Amino acid sequence: MPLPPHLYTLADYARAAQARIDPAVWAWLEGASGDGAARRREEASFAAHALLNRPLADLRGGHTRRRLLGLELAHPVMLSPLGYHGLVHPEGELATARGCLETVMTVSTMASQPIEAIAQVAAGPLWFQLYVQPRREDTLRLIRRAEAAEARAIIVTLDTPAQPASPQALRAGFAIPRGVEAVHLSGFAPAPEASGGWYNPALSRLTAAAPGWDDMAWLRDQTDLPLLAKGMSRVDDAARLMALGWDGLVLSTHGGRAMEGAAAPLTLLPAMRAALGADRAILLDGSVRTGADVFRALALGADAVMIGRPQLHGLGVGGALGVAHMLKILREELELAMVLAGCATLDAIGPDALIGG
Amino acid sequence: MPLPPHLYTLADYARAAQARIDPAVWAWLEGASGDGAARRREEASFAAHALLNRPLADLRGGHTRRRLLGLELAHPVMLSPLGYHGLVHPEGELATARGCLETVMTVSTMASQPIEAIAQVAAGPLWFQLYVQPRREDTLRLIRRAEAAEARAIIVTLDTPAQPASPQALRAGFAIPRGVEAVHLSGFAPAPEASGGWYNPALSRLTAAAPGWDDMAWLRDQTDLPLLAKGMSRVDDAARLMALGWDGLVLSTHGGRAMEGAAAPLTLLPAMRAALGADRAILLDGSVRTGADVFRALALGADAVMIGRPQLHGLGVGGALGVAHMLKILREELELAMVLAGCATLDAIGPDALIGG
Amino acid sequence: MPLPPHLYTLADYARAAQARIDPAVWAWLEGASGDGAARRREEASFAAHALLNRPLADLRGGHTRRRLLGLELAHPVMLSPLGYHGLVHPEGELATARGCLETVMTVSTMASQPIEAIAQVAAGPLWFQLYVQPRREDTLRLIRRAEAAEARAIIVTLDTPAQPASPQALRAGFAIPRGVEAVHLSGFAPAPEASGGWYNPALSRLTAAAPGWDDMAWLRDQTDLPLLAKGMSRVDDAARLMALGWDGLVLSTHGGRAMEGAAAPLTLLPAMRAALGADRAILLDGSVRTGADVFRALALGADAVMIGRPQLHGLGVGGALGVAHMLKILREELELAMVLAGCATLDAIGPDALIGG
Amino acid sequence: MPLPPHLYTLADYARAAQARIDPAVWAWLEGASGDGAARRREEASFAAHALLNRPLADLRGGHTRRRLLGLELAHPVMLSPLGYHGLVHPEGELATARGCLETVMTVSTMASQPIEAIAQVAAGPLWFQLYVQPRREDTLRLIRRAEAAEARAIIVTLDTPAQPASPQALRAGFAIPRGVEAVHLSGFAPAPEASGGWYNPALSRLTAAAPGWDDMAWLRDQTDLPLLAKGMSRVDDAARLMALGWDGLVLSTHGGRAMEGAAAPLTLLPAMRAALGADRAILLDGSVRTGADVFRALALGADAVMIGRPQLHGLGVGGALGVAHMLKILREELELAMVLAGCATLDAIGPDALIGG
Repeated sequence: MPLPPHLYTLADYARAAQARIDPAVWAWLEGASGDGAARRREEASFAAHALLNRPLADLRGGHTRRRLLGLELAHPVMLSPLGYHGLVHPEGELATARGCLETVMTVSTMASQPIEAIAQVAAGPLWFQLYVQPRREDTLRLIRRAEAAEARAIIVTLDTPAQPASPQALRAGFAIPRGVEAVHLSGFAPAPEASGGWYNPALSRLTAAAPGWDDMAWLRDQTDLPLLAKGMSRVDDAARLMALGWDGLVLSTHGGRAMEGAAAPLTLLPAMRAALGADRAILLDGSVRTGADVFRALALGADAVMIGRPQLHGLGVGGALGVAHMLKILREELELAMVLAGCATLDAIGPDALIGG
Repeated sequence: MPLPPHLYTLADYARAAQARIDPAVWAWLEGASGDGAARRREEASFAAHALLNRPLADLRGGHTRRRLLGLELAHPVMLSPLGYHGLVHPEGELATARGCLETVMTVSTMASQPIEAIAQVAAGPLWFQLYVQPRREDTLRLIRRAEAAEARAIIVTLDTPAQPASPQALRAGFAIPRGVEAVHLSGFAPAPEASGGWYNPALSRLTAAAPGWDDMAWLRDQTDLPLLAKGMSRVDDAARLMALGWDGLVLSTHGGRAMEGAAAPLTLLPAMRAALGADRAILLDGSVRTGADVFRALALGADAVMIGRPQLHGLGVGGALGVAHMLKILREELELAMVLAGCATLDAIGPDALIGG
Repeated sequence: MPLPPHLYTLADYARAAQARIDPAVWAWLEGASGDGAARRREEASFAAHALLNRPLADLRGGHTRRRLLGLELAHPVMLSPLGYHGLVHPEGELATARGCLETVMTVSTMASQPIEAIAQVAAGPLWFQLYVQPRREDTLRLIRRAEAAEARAIIVTLDTPAQPASPQALRAGFAIPRGVEAVHLSGFAPAPEASGGWYNPALSRLTAAAPGWDDMAWLRDQTDLPLLAKGMSRVDDAARLMALGWDGLVLSTHGGRAMEGAAAPLTLLPAMRAALGADRAILLDGSVRTGADVFRALALGADAVMIGRPQLHGLGVGGALGVAHMLKILREELELAMVLAGCATLDAIGPDALIGG
Repeated sequence: MPLPPHLYTLADYARAAQARIDPAVWAWLEGASGDGAARRREEASFAAHALLNRPLADLRGGHTRRRLLGLELAHPVMLSPLGYHGLVHPEGELATARGCLETVMTVSTMASQPIEAIAQVAAGPLWFQLYVQPRREDTLRLIRRAEAAEARAIIVTLDTPAQPASPQALRAGFAIPRGVEAVHLSGFAPAPEASGGWYNPALSRLTAAAPGWDDMAWLRDQTDLPLLAKGMSRVDDAARLMALGWDGLVLSTHGGRAMEGAAAPLTLLPAMRAALGADRAILLDGSVRTGADVFRALALGADAVMIGRPQLHGLGVGGALGVAHMLKILREELELAMVLAGCATLDAIGPDALIGG
C-alpha cells in the first residue's frame, strides 16, 4: 500500500494511524495505566533538556553506527517488543520485520507470528523478548527457539506479568480477535492456581509464578546469548543482576502501561549509567518520538533507544514500508541533531551537549 | 441496583456519580473554598512523586494487612467522616456501612443515621468522628454513644467548625432537604451567643465555643478509645497533643473545603512522621484517587489513608455495592503498585520506592 | 440599587461588573501593559505560598484591627488610589467613599470628584495620592487641599507618570467621556515641552518634569502628614527614602499597567521588610482577591493591603453598597483564615503560618 | 499602503500579517523544527526574568544610542538576516531597507534583491549575512560585494546549512515561487556530491562542504570588516573563535528552525558574556517581541538584539512603513522600560534590574 502524504514526523504517523486503525485496537495500543501520568512524565523528562549546537567540527564521513552486544548496527534506534502485530496488519510481525532495516527488531513472546517465520523474512537481526514461564522447561523451549532462529540477544521482561488491561482498552471492549494469538505460548502450562495472600487472585497466581533472583542465575546458565533485563529501575537491583553475568538493561515503563506513576526512564538513566559503568548495555525505551529525543537519551548514557507504539503506527499506516519510513524519519532527525551538535559519531554525544531547561 | 458499566477507576466513579446525583447536592459534595486551589495543590503533591519498580522480590503470600490502633485491617484504605450520606442514597450511612468491607468506616457527628443503627449493619469496624460540643455533657454523650456502639477509635475534628458553605453550594442554592438531618445532635444546646471580637458574628460564637488545649486533656481522660486529631498541620502542635496521650493525627484539608490555600497533607507528611516517630498513627486524607496515591502516602509515612468524596460517589452510583466496588478498585490498584514495586507488605513501602519528579 | 444575587467572592464581583460596565470602560479598567504577564506573575506569587492551619488557639475576642500611621483601622484592607470613579458610577468617588467602611479610601489626584466633597461623605478616613506636579506650587496646592480635607496620609506615586494606555483600552477606543475629569488638576500648568533626549517626545517631557531625590526631601519638609512612596521596588532606594524621613512604601505594579514584566510585589516583600525594619509602613497592592491573599501578604511582612480594580467592580455592580459588600467579603475571608490559622490578631500572622508550594 | 488600525504591539502585527500573507508563505515563515519546542523555550526564558522599577533617577536627556562595531546606532534593535523578503512584498528587501530607520538591516545571502540595490535605498547601515560557499572564490565574491556595497559588518552563519524545511512548510506545499530567488548565489557552484558517511545524502554533501576552523582563520584574513558568528552556543567554541580575531557572536536558534530542542539564547547569554568579556559583541536573536524583552537581553549581557519574523510581519502588513512602525513600537517600549527602571542609557541596564520569577 502506498504511504499517505504528509508524513514528516512521528507525530504525523500517530495521527495517520489513529485514522486507520480500528478504535478498539487503538484503545489497546494507546491505553496506559490510570490517567496516563507516566507517559506525560516521560515527555516532560525529554523537554527538560535542551541541546547545544556546535558548528565547525569536522563531520565528514560521520555516521550513526553502533557496536552493541556483538552487533554492528547502522543506527541506535531499535524496535522494542510489542505483542500482536497482527492486530494492525494482516501479516503482523512479518511485515514489521521486512521494514526493520539495518537495526534490531525484538520479537515478543506475545508475537502473533512465530519467530522462525519472522527470521526468514527479517531485514535485520532479531532479538527475542522473553517472559519467564511458570515451568522452566517452557522457558527453555522459548530460549532454544530464539537461539535456533538466530536471535542475537534476549530481553527478559521482569515486571509486566502484572500489567493489567488499560481503562481505555476495557472501555472500548477490546479483545484479541479470533485469528490473532500468542503463538509462542501454544501448549504451555498456565501458571498454577495459588492460594492465600493477595486479595486479587491474579496477583496470587502471578507472584507464585514470578521469577526470582535464583531464576536470573539459572537463565544466565542456559544460554550464551546476551541477556538484558527490562523492568528494573533501581541501581542496587541492576548492580546485583550484572554481578550474575547479565549484559544490560532496558529502562522502560512499558509505555506507561504497567506501574501507574512510574518514574521516567530518562530521569533514571544518568545514575544507572554511573553505577553500571561503560561495559554494560543500557537501552532506553519510552516516548522517544524525535531524533532530538534519541540524542538526549544517548547524551545521558543510553547505548541505544527502543521504539514501541510508533512501530505499529508505521505498520498500520504503511505496512513494511511504513515501518521503514518511520525509522528513516528518526534516523535522519538523529543525524541532523548530530550534525548541528557537532558530533560525527554516537560516541561524541555526551552530557556536555545538553543544558537543563 | 446493578452497577453501570465501565467503572474501572475512581475517576470513572466520579463521572458516573455526577450524572446521577442531584446538581445541588453535587455542588455541595464537590464544592471547595474559594477557587479550589487546595484541591489542585493536593493533586500536584501526589504527581510530584514517581514510583520506582522493583522486580524479582519474593512476593508470595503478600498482603495489604495493617495493624492500627488495635485493629487488624485487611487494607489501609478507610472511609473518612462525611456528613449526610442520606443526600445521595435513601438508606444513607446504612448502605455505606454495608459496603465498607474489611476496613473502617468513620461515622460523622453529622451523619444522617444514628451510629447504633449503623453499627448493626456494618460490615467492618466503625470509628466515630467527634465535633466537640459547646457543653461538655453533650460531648460526653456523643463519646458514650460511640463507645456503646463499639466504635474502635474517635477522630476529633478540630478545625472545621469554621468551614463555610462553598461558593458552589451557595450558587446552587443547596440546602439540607427535609428528612435528612444530623441525628446525633438532636436536642443539643447550640453554641451560646458571644459578643465582642470578630466582625463576623458566627466567628465570635464559634471561637467562644471552640475547644482549647484544656479540652484535649479532658477528652483524653474521658475515654479509653484511641483518640486522633483531625485538622492539625504543624509539628509543634502535634507533638504537644501527643504529649497529652493522644494516639495520632489525620492530616487533611477536608477536601479543600476549610482553609482556602491550605497546604497539601502529603507535603506535610514526612516532617510530621519524623516528629512523631513510628508509634503514633498518622492518616492521610485528601485527593487519594488511585492505588499509586495510597502507595505514595504510605511511602512518605502514613499508616493508612482515608477516602472522602469517592465514598459518596460509590454510594450514589451503586449503593452498598458501589462503595464496596470503589474500595475494591483502590485495593487492587494498591496491590498492583506493591507487586510492581516489590513490596510484599505495607511495611516494605518506604521512601526509597519514590523519586521526585 | 439592590445587589444582584450570587456575589460570594471577588471573582463573582468581577464577573458581575463585566456584565454591567461599558465595554470600553471595562477595557480601560482591566487593561494592562503588553500581554498581561505582570498580573499573571502576581497571581502566581500568591499561589506559591500555602497556609498552615492551627486549631486549639484561644481566639476569643479576636479581631483584625491595625494601628497604622496614626490610624486605628478595623481591618487591614484599604482602597488604593484609582482615578475616574465617575466612569462606572454617576456619583463616582462619593459613592465609593460612602461604602468604604472602617478603613481608608485613598483619593487619587485623578479623581473625578474633589477631595473636599469626598471628605464630606466619607465613611472612614481618607488618604490622598499625589502625583508630583511640574510646578512645586501646584504640588503644594494639592498637599494643602489634602491637609484641609483631613487626609491622614499621602501616597506619592513615583513611577506611573510613564504609564501608557493599555493595548486593550486603545483597541476599544476608550476615551475619558465628557463630564468626567481629573478635577484636582484644573488650571494646573502642564509639563513644559522638553527637547533632546528620548525618541518618544512624551518621555522627554515626562523625564524633564519627573521628581528626583531632592523633591523627596522637599516634600518631606512641606507637610507633617505621613508620606508613603508608591512605585519603588529596590531595597536600596527604599532605605534611602526612609533616611529622608519618609514613613513607608506601597509595593505595587499598578495592577500590571505600568512596567511590562514587572516583579510581583509579594516576591519583593520579605526582603523589603527585612531592610526597613518593623517601624516603617509597607503596604502591598496588586492582585489581592481573597482573604487568604491578605493573610499571605501580612504573613510575609505587609502591614496592610490595598485593593484596586475590585473597588470599581463593587462600585459598578452596586454603588456604595457594592463597595461595602466587596470589603465585607474580604474581611470575613481574612477572619476565617485567621481563625483557621490560629491567629487572634494580625500581629500573630507570621511567616511560620505559610509553607512553600 | 496605509497601516490597518489597532497595531499597538508586535503581537498585533503578527495577527495582522497572518490575515494578509499567503498561507503557504505564512507556513514557511512561522514554521519551526519538530513541534516548535525551541520557540516555546525561548519565550519561557524571557518570562523567567521580572523587571524591577526604579523611580527618582535623573533621566533627562536619556537615550537608547549604542556604539557597536564602529557604528553609532540610535537604538539596539537590529534586523536579523531573513531570506526572500520578496515572498511578502513585491519590492522585497528594498522596502524593508527603506523602513529600517536608524538601525542596521542585515542582508541575507538568500535575499531576493541584490545588496547593491538595497544599499542604494537603505535608510540606515547594512550588514551582510554570509553562508560560507563550497568554493572559496564564491565566498570571496560575496565578501567583496558586501564591502563594495559598504556593508559595515559580516555575520557568518555557521549552523543553518543543515536547516531543513519545517513540517508546516512541507504540509502547506510551500515552494519558492517563480520570480523570487536568491540572487546573490546566481552562478555559484553547488556543493559537490560527497559519498560515504551519513545516511542522508544531503548531510554527506553538506558536511563535506561545511566550513571548519581553518575557514574561520581564512575568513578573518580576507576582510577588515567586523566578523560575527551566528550559530554557536558553547563558551569554549566562542573563546576559540575570538582568539582568531573575530569580533563577536549572534546567539540564535534561527527562530527555532534549525536544531530541534535547541537551548534558548537568553539562557546561554550570561555565561557567554562572562567568558568573552566586555570587548566582544554579543547579539541576541530569537523571540524578542517587546521592549521588556530587549531590556532583559541587554540586562543579561547583550549589546543589541536582532528581530527576525516581525520584520516580515511589518513588511507584509505595511511595506516600508510597517517595518518602520514595528521598530518604533519596540523602540518606544524599550524606552518606557528604561524610564521605569531608572536607566538613562543602555549602559545603565544591568542584571540588578532583574529578579528571577
